[in-house]
Amino acid sequence: MSLIVVGSMAYDAIETPFGKMDWIVGGAATYAAYAASNFIKPINQVSIVGYDFAQEEMDELRKRGVNLEGVEVVGDKKSFFWSGRYHLDMNTRDTLVTDLNVLADFNPIIPDSYQGSEFLMLGNVLPSLQISVVQQLKTRPKLIAMDTMNFWMDNALPDLKKLLTMVDVLLVNDSEARQLSGQFSLVKAAKEIQKMGPKYLVIKKGEHGALLFHGDKVFFAPALPLEEVFDPTGAGDTFAGGFIGHIAQTRDISFENMKTAIIVGSAMASFCVEKFGPTRLKEIRKTDIDERIRQFIDLVNFDIQLV
Amino acid sequence: MSLIVVGSMAYDAIETPFGKMDWIVGGAATYAAYAASNFIKPINQVSIVGYDFAQEEMDELRKRGVNLEGVEVVGDKKSFFWSGRYHLDMNTRDTLVTDLNVLADFNPIIPDSYQGSEFLMLGNVLPSLQISVVQQLKTRPKLIAMDTMNFWMDNALPDLKKLLTMVDVLLVNDSEARQLSGQFSLVKAAKEIQKMGPKYLVIKKGEHGALLFHGDKVFFAPALPLEEVFDPTGAGDTFAGGFIGHIAQTRDISFENMKTAIIVGSAMASFCVEKFGPTRLKEIRKTDIDERIRQFIDLVNFDIQLV
Repeated sequence: MSLIVVGSMAYDAIETPFGKMDWIVGGAATYAAYAASNFIKPINQVSIVGYDFAQEEMDELRKRGVNLEGVEVVGDKKSFFWSGRYHLDMNTRDTLVTDLNVLADFNPIIPDSYQGSEFLMLGNVLPSLQISVVQQLKTRPKLIAMDTMNFWMDNALPDLKKLLTMVDVLLVNDSEARQLSGQFSLVKAAKEIQKMGPKYLVIKKGEHGALLFHGDKVFFAPALPLEEVFDPTGAGDTFAGGFIGHIAQTRDISFENMKTAIIVGSAMASFCVEKFGPTRLKEIRKTDIDERIRQFIDLVNFDIQLV
Repeated sequence: MSLIVVGSMAYDAIETPFGKMDWIVGGAATYAAYAASNFIKPINQVSIVGYDFAQEEMDELRKRGVNLEGVEVVGDKKSFFWSGRYHLDMNTRDTLVTDLNVLADFNPIIPDSYQGSEFLMLGNVLPSLQISVVQQLKTRPKLIAMDTMNFWMDNALPDLKKLLTMVDVLLVNDSEARQLSGQFSLVKAAKEIQKMGPKYLVIKKGEHGALLFHGDKVFFAPALPLEEVFDPTGAGDTFAGGFIGHIAQTRDISFENMKTAIIVGSAMASFCVEKFGPTRLKEIRKTDIDERIRQFIDLVNFDIQLV
């Protein structure tokens, strides 16, 4: 029972209508690992960081069962840095700075100790690197999930298309699903994308929830209506971490269980946005998660008698 | 067991990315009556139309149990006319023409035969007219629901605020809820609006579903993901008609039953958008509605074991 998480570990500078944070840990794989660590150990992390990545952060991750053998530390370069400013609606943001730094040299090597991992979450990096990870695994994982972004659709589409034939689950947001499929209707987009490879498609719609498509089946989970969305950074990666974490914990890759995984992912994302960066993810415990999942049940549960 | 529906009956010209319709019946009370007529009879309609309102439409409504005694027919003026063009995303539209015509003289008179109606749906008209309807009723209905719009928040706020103290349920869209409350967070907006009078608040988010707030309780219903949204005109009014129709049918004004009413409203709205104007609403039967409600159950239903 183990999970490989591939992706960036970074530092961010974030500005929201509620405040400003000049230097806080970030990166897709960081958020995914913090979220997934509530459900499964070990998490076999694959990433690259610079000399500036804090030892305390590494220790914190290790304490939660995150194996860092696959995280390359580059002694003479800085970690990937991203800076962004959110608009008042919190759904849109401007990227102010993207300093790739070590990420420009990322060439993931899967340690021997990671071989045999049953689950794989490919965070958003260059599609050729995602392909390389899959190809390095001697036994195909039970389930491979991947994230990507519009930038790769514009700049690395052939590799992305090849990768899509190798994975089981694609997680993207609504505009990415539209761009990839060329379809505006998300129902039509889901059909097109399933033809490209992944038999399961998760479309993340931020504050408007998430959809899971599989064949003709569809499942919807809302986002929890919150009084305050403090910082949406990492919410999608946290969702992915909760999603794959629940599946890895239960070792059940049925559509029914994936529905539950979507709820777990939504619950984790609802914590993420409550404080800057991954701060809130480090505070919560199992009782908090269970309570939050109960709120989701109350939010959508209804009884109806068809007579 | 009867329901009063107050609001406009009109003609529309609609342009969507899928086509154009120069002259099709519309109006909030028309949509609401078509939707509600699947659940309750009679519907005591209160509206005003001009000489151009088709007799066949009146006959169609009567056939479905819509009582038109409260619909004033003005012999020398045209019906209210609205024309709009939808953007590609179908969530936004430009209003091209608004010809009030008879609506400028609307002064609703409640016929004696409508007295004692148990349920009242106040469609979006001048708040002072909505107040007048409530004041004309000798027995207060078991439940009063109302719709309104941003225009009245800008131009008739004192009347609107007075009206809010007289009703049980307010149905508005997300931007209207934000404007009325001065709160961006819909959770905060819901708290503010409940302080203004209505103990139940329904926030319609179009393709992103609908929220029901009551005290600290919240319920969410998604919109059905559709391959094609053909024409969103009237979807909100259809939702309101399904919502109040279900409540009037069951005569149960509990929060639990209102959740079901939200699902019924969402199901009715999902039909409305499939064809131009109310076309689809005239075609569907009980079996279609039941099937659609089953799709909603499948869409949100999940089993989760908290261990």
